[in-house]
Amino acid sequence: MHLFYQPDIVPNEPVQLLTEDDSRHAVKTLRLNVGDAIAVTDGRGNRYLAVIHAADARRCAFRISDIQTTPPRPFSIRICIAPTKNIDRIEWFIEKAVEIGIERISFFFGQHSERRILKLERLEKIAVAAMKQSLQSYLPSIDEALPFGEFVKTVTEEQRFIAHLPIDEPPQNLVKRATVSGQYAVLIGPEGDFSEKEIQQAVGAGFQMVTLGPNRLRTETAGLMACHTLQVLNAE
Amino acid sequence: MHLFYQPDIVPNEPVQLLTEDDSRHAVKTLRLNVGDAIAVTDGRGNRYLAVIHAADARRCAFRISDIQTTPPRPFSIRICIAPTKNIDRIEWFIEKAVEIGIERISFFFGQHSERRILKLERLEKIAVAAMKQSLQSYLPSIDEALPFGEFVKTVTEEQRFIAHLPIDEPPQNLVKRATVSGQYAVLIGPEGDFSEKEIQQAVGAGFQMVTLGPNRLRTETAGLMACHTLQVLNAE
Repeated sequence: MHLFYQPDIVPNEPVQLLTEDDSRHAVKTLRLNVGDAIAVTDGRGNRYLAVIHAADARRCAFRISDIQTTPPRPFSIRICIAPTKNIDRIEWFIEKAVEIGIERISFFFGQHSERRILKLERLEKIAVAAMKQSLQSYLPSIDEALPFGEFVKTVTEEQRFIAHLPIDEPPQNLVKRATVSGQYAVLIGPEGDFSEKEIQQAVGAGFQMVTLGPNRLRTETAGLMACHTLQVLNAE
Repeated sequence: MHLFYQPDIVPNEPVQLLTEDDSRHAVKTLRLNVGDAIAVTDGRGNRYLAVIHAADARRCAFRISDIQTTPPRPFSIRICIAPTKNIDRIEWFIEKAVEIGIERISFFFGQHSERRILKLERLEKIAVAAMKQSLQSYLPSIDEALPFGEFVKTVTEEQRFIAHLPIDEPPQNLVKRATVSGQYAVLIGPEGDFSEKEIQQAVGAGFQMVTLGPNRLRTETAGLMACHTLQVLNAE
């Protein structure tokens, strides 16, 4: 069953509308008709089973018949990443991270960053599409990019990690340092790595250095693997 | 330092040649000259430090000065995947799997497969490029695709898994079922899943059913996550 996204669902309203984009997709592409069953998520854990009420390509109306609510998972993952010069790679990261499951995606500009401007609009659309495609009902939040020094202060998750090899001690893998059912934030630096000053700022703000494995990973791969590592840690 | 790939290195030969492709890249693109230092891997764990001896764009010669040998890791991962209709997705999988680390990639054609022909030549090139880019010295082997029934009999790894949810028992995550330092093989089915007959063939051949997590994953994402799960299990 096709999943649509409508953040403005009001649970008790008898008839509601899909977004313009979803209306066009439902009516023009999927050719749905009055009476067809659909599912609509609000991106906040609720999945509404519904029926098409009016198959209008700009204002497709639906009537809710049931609601399935998924509780949030007992841990939360926030990946904080330096956006790559090549925007495709960021878009790939967003799509795959949403597919495997992520709560929050943040961006920062570091000293060695390849990119200093980032528009979120397209990234948000990619996140919505990935949520629908993987039939999930939580939409991760995506934050505007901030300069590193400023950004580091905004991170309040209790388990904070920075993907960087320490100089004077053996590296510890993220999966060994993190503990289950936590609120996690992981900093993933640009290809040119973090600067010494950034490392000090992060350590000073309570971030622990971790490795994601022995191989040198591209930024976007590292971001996805950090997210997946924490999922595997929490696997039941 | 740029890493080149020459599977035909003979350790005791004083002067050897890069492949034609690597010669062109070294001389025309990187503009390397006589005396410049390079690294060359044979894809079998050996990384040779060398010096350019003759900067010929078709037959670039080098002289070996040192050798670094990396032992194979104490576990091995073989991902066996049903190739997707969209070849980009398979290529993406190869590139990412090599980047994070994989020993062997196999393909099979299943009842619900979207694709029934697979040419390996380009996939092998992608694997070589990914090995070089991530500075590794082991090139995973890539097997020609076989029909599922035939393929399943070729799998001799001691720990064999199939990504499929059992009907009458709770699903077990791959990370819980696999044990460290193993020789692993994981079957990843097409988007339409395995057929009942294929499940029976796999179970009969000693494969255990596992889940890769609660979300519905695309075939190529599942392949990468299976590989990464086993890495995380074995993280030191």
